Amino acid sequence: MPEELLQGEVYRRVQGLQRRLQAEGITAALLTQSADILYYSGTCQSGHLYIPAEGEPVFMVRRDYEQARLTAALKNVVPLRRFGEIPGILSGFGLPVPEVLGCECDVLPVSIYLRYQKLFPGTRFVDVSGFIRQQRAVKSPYEIEILAESGRRLDQMLATVPRVAEVGRTEVEMAGLLEGEARRLGHQGLVRFRGMNYDFFMGHLLTGPSGAAPSSFDGPVSGLGLDPSFAFGAGWRRLKADEPLYVDYGFAYRGYITDATRVFVIGELSGRLARAHAVALEIQAAVLEAVRPGVTGGALYELAVAMARKADLADNFQGWRQPVRFIGHGVGLELNELPVLAAGVEETLAPGMVFALEPKFVFPGEGAVGIENTVVVTANGVERLTNFPDGIYQLR
Amino acid sequence: MPEELLQGEVYRRVQGLQRRLQAEGITAALLTQSADILYYSGTCQSGHLYIPAEGEPVFMVRRDYEQARLTAALKNVVPLRRFGEIPGILSGFGLPVPEVLGCECDVLPVSIYLRYQKLFPGTRFVDVSGFIRQQRAVKSPYEIEILAESGRRLDQMLATVPRVAEVGRTEVEMAGLLEGEARRLGHQGLVRFRGMNYDFFMGHLLTGPSGAAPSSFDGPVSGLGLDPSFAFGAGWRRLKADEPLYVDYGFAYRGYITDATRVFVIGELSGRLARAHAVALEIQAAVLEAVRPGVTGGALYELAVAMARKADLADNFQGWRQPVRFIGHGVGLELNELPVLAAGVEETLAPGMVFALEPKFVFPGEGAVGIENTVVVTANGVERLTNFPDGIYQLR
Repeated sequence: MPEELLQGEVYRRVQGLQRRLQAEGITAALLTQSADILYYSGTCQSGHLYIPAEGEPVFMVRRDYEQARLTAALKNVVPLRRFGEIPGILSGFGLPVPEVLGCECDVLPVSIYLRYQKLFPGTRFVDVSGFIRQQRAVKSPYEIEILAESGRRLDQMLATVPRVAEVGRTEVEMAGLLEGEARRLGHQGLVRFRGMNYDFFMGHLLTGPSGAAPSSFDGPVSGLGLDPSFAFGAGWRRLKADEPLYVDYGFAYRGYITDATRVFVIGELSGRLARAHAVALEIQAAVLEAVRPGVTGGALYELAVAMARKADLADNFQGWRQPVRFIGHGVGLELNELPVLAAGVEETLAPGMVFALEPKFVFPGEGAVGIENTVVVTANGVERLTNFPDGIYQLR
Repeated sequence: MPEELLQGEVYRRVQGLQRRLQAEGITAALLTQSADILYYSGTCQSGHLYIPAEGEPVFMVRRDYEQARLTAALKNVVPLRRFGEIPGILSGFGLPVPEVLGCECDVLPVSIYLRYQKLFPGTRFVDVSGFIRQQRAVKSPYEIEILAESGRRLDQMLATVPRVAEVGRTEVEMAGLLEGEARRLGHQGLVRFRGMNYDFFMGHLLTGPSGAAPSSFDGPVSGLGLDPSFAFGAGWRRLKADEPLYVDYGFAYRGYITDATRVFVIGELSGRLARAHAVALEIQAAVLEAVRPGVTGGALYELAVAMARKADLADNFQGWRQPVRFIGHGVGLELNELPVLAAGVEETLAPGMVFALEPKFVFPGEGAVGIENTVVVTANGVERLTNFPDGIYQLR
């Protein structure tokens, strides 16, 4: 069993979900997705976690049982040899066959869902992924402490960019060196991304026009990668002087991701790009000034769009061909958590929510500039978790 | 439109699936998973790919449409603004409402499946992921050429281990340096892994006893990572002399993954570990000698187990607490493809199949030794795609 602190934390999380299950008349949740299992058990081994609306959860572990027993902060951890044992194990714990069973329908594959349905033929299945995502959006002090450490290490990672940037070096070589530095600093490598097509790798390091290449990725900037098989991030282009070196990385520390973007340059950027970067910083300042419990993600998005419009940069804001209609996204165990600061979002911010705010400007043929920082919503405002200097960083 | 070569290749793949759909009485397949879309379109943008049993496929692209149009090797590439447009777009191409529609049920999330069902209320849904995985198991000459290049780069990556290994260095620092070298060599970063919990990151670099730590990963060896939030790969342990430095990485080049493992040492390994490594090499030789079209994955597995038993090493073969019951796995666009060389597998090998063969021995408290190479099945045997020397590599 791990530290007492994590036990209290995990049981508070379980109880939070249980209150929601009770309110919705759901008998239990049956979870298999790794980030959700990590959240509600304190560890990440392969198996199925059954959380009844009342009483003790049961973590049925396919592998590795001993590791799970050592590291999970739950009382009932049992080995699972075959899928079909699940109902027997649950009834062994005195748990009745569920009337209504909640699943992670946003990520659970159909084949596992159909097998669940065969195990519990009389049961009605519902989606609880929305409840889970809502709960996970609000971080506890325990989580915020880890996120703050993640942010400090992301700052240190960004501080190594001057050591890896070199005119004539390919993006992918610089990316590799930077990612290597991140690993030395304790980056776990994997940046979890919720959804079917987990096509994400640590972040983007892009030079000049690469920063303006539209791609399949749901972000303002992505890059086209090395080739069309994975059109994402660093490619073969070599850094030149007087163009933006755009660096956007997630840092995953003890499971928790912080996210930041900085712009570096060897030489000097054009006045147009420098001015757009300054506008991005103004938008960041205005949005952070407006953040408080009760404000909607939509209102913050509109505030940012209005400022971009006023600066005559609306056509370059958050992309150009197919700009994304958000300026921020929740981060935590996954990079794409709630809240989303996007057009039309009426959900309000609450203390403990952690998000990455990323106003950016993209100029076809020239590149991307702008800023991204991870922040936590407090009782009356916001606190930054990433603190590397915001300005364009002149390398030499 | 990309090179003519890729067009021919992609249409042969589409026709292969179409023949199977026709034989099974399935009207069409509707695909969303990134590796499958890459396989049947030649590119990887976000969208839905409809492949009717007869006629032209339609690639409906959410983003980025222009990139998809430039890089997909298909005639019909159209933008998709909203999910609900799918039936209208298909009927616009003269395609009837499908009677039977095939989905990737092994990876498709329930929520998307339910939305598909609403779009096509009279349609019967079936799983075509098995057909897709079977087809993708047999590589074309076009694919084998890319895989061979992937293997050459993996060899080069392994050749950099002597530069990064240092007594006293942490696993994660050495891993970061090695991963950085891989990136410079054109590793795309992402190593695609089929399934819900995509918890995989490039590979494992493990020192001494770390190589024997059981984990959630379905492999003979995994490591416990930096902490329980991602119990995978390199951790904080520092390399000592006279212990195995175990290096198992996938190299992803133009989408295609090769996989290899080598053991390095500063100083000398114990006689027991050295002997086990020699037995692993004997098993590799015997299995590769036995590989030919028509042999089953199960027979090859049994051959390997018998040799491990004869060498009195059965208890250490493929893990110790919960050994995996396979010695090889298909590789291609994903790391966990068919064929599987596992207990009870009756499917036979065919020319063009590419797999990683990995006989390994794990000693609790001491570490892991053994070998892994990626090979392609030929008309009368096998050819290696990874060729870094197999022996224990003495660093100094």
